[in-house]
Amino acid sequence: MPRVVKSPETRKGELLDCAQALFFARGYERTTVNDIIQQAGVSKGGFYHHFTSKEDMLEALAARMAMQAVAQVTDVLEDPGLDALSRLNAFLARSRQMKIEDAPKIRAMFDTAFRPENIVLYHRLNAAVIGVMTPVLARIIAQGRDEGRFNTPDALMTAEIVLHLGASTHDAVARAIAASGTAQASAAADALEDRLRLQGIAIDRILGLKDGSIAFVEPGFARSIMAAR
Amino acid sequence: MPRVVKSPETRKGELLDCAQALFFARGYERTTVNDIIQQAGVSKGGFYHHFTSKEDMLEALAARMAMQAVAQVTDVLEDPGLDALSRLNAFLARSRQMKIEDAPKIRAMFDTAFRPENIVLYHRLNAAVIGVMTPVLARIIAQGRDEGRFNTPDALMTAEIVLHLGASTHDAVARAIAASGTAQASAAADALEDRLRLQGIAIDRILGLKDGSIAFVEPGFARSIMAAR
Repeated sequence: MPRVVKSPETRKGELLDCAQALFFARGYERTTVNDIIQQAGVSKGGFYHHFTSKEDMLEALAARMAMQAVAQVTDVLEDPGLDALSRLNAFLARSRQMKIEDAPKIRAMFDTAFRPENIVLYHRLNAAVIGVMTPVLARIIAQGRDEGRFNTPDALMTAEIVLHLGASTHDAVARAIAASGTAQASAAADALEDRLRLQGIAIDRILGLKDGSIAFVEPGFARSIMAAR
Repeated sequence: MPRVVKSPETRKGELLDCAQALFFARGYERTTVNDIIQQAGVSKGGFYHHFTSKEDMLEALAARMAMQAVAQVTDVLEDPGLDALSRLNAFLARSRQMKIEDAPKIRAMFDTAFRPENIVLYHRLNAAVIGVMTPVLARIIAQGRDEGRFNTPDALMTAEIVLHLGASTHDAVARAIAASGTAQASAAADALEDRLRLQGIAIDRILGLKDGSIAFVEPGFARSIMAAR
């Protein structure tokens, strides 16, 4: 039988697949680098050839998940019949739908990323996702400017500013997670939703749109995500 | 001679004074916890009673510096003759003036906080400063709403959103620092200033003000800070 020589990218992808499955099954904290290399059938040297640490791997995983999410909405991003605002709202609606479908997995990542002691990890994951999302959002903003409906001086910088608003909800998400399963769960989820709604209005305004143009959150969204186990 | 018993808060303040002097004189990286306790005449146990680490101490120092900066503009914050927009602009102008006066010290902190390997530290310092600034800004926003000039649903949440915009300039600041002293220094400082200007417009809009209402940056500000040594 001929020996199968896998490319470094294939190996890296397989390592990420293994890690993702283990993180979702056992949780990030309870998965070690040894668990991952055993499952993947890779040596320790092979792991460290691709990743400097478990945190580094989670960052690569967050970027890959963001890219996969973007790939799943290519139809919305490429549809020539959509104006920029419809495209942005369709993109957000599909993103929310995917988040609700994947809520248990997302909760598993959030539970780790939003622990107070994991603030570093949160910022690394956030930066990875912002890196993937920036060109996608910048393209929609540029279309909106070309159509004369969005009013903003620089599409790329504006995309970065808008995406950085996400970090302003960090504490509200952390509080909602902490309250999960307690009598305060619903109130904490509603408080998070209030913040997300205000973030949506901030984005409307930054893009030069009327308040409420962007459907950033829908009623009950935060409760749906937070109720998932 | 009676033994002087200092309160824990006095001790903590003295430790911070020593650390601040050492950080500014030698740089944060080249100062050890041992240097600080020797200078302060405190035992290692005394240090760790107040701080968990050098990073923890720098975070406390950032919060203290932010509080001192706010204390220096009490006249602007309390002046009953100022409407909210004038108060905000006077506050920003005084903050810029203090930053230019203290530019060498600020650069010494920035050089450390904006290194790629110190991203954690950056986020801890940023969170500490946001914690101090949130109630100050929320009060100005609430005044602007009461006057009917600012248009925003929730003063406290809006203050948090506005303050989180600062992180969107992290990379531009890091690039300006890296370019400092090279042929690209002026271009990098100007690129930073462009971002700060756009951030100012984002804040105008989030507060429901016309573009350019808030003087967030003045021409040459980024170059002045970045040229300081």
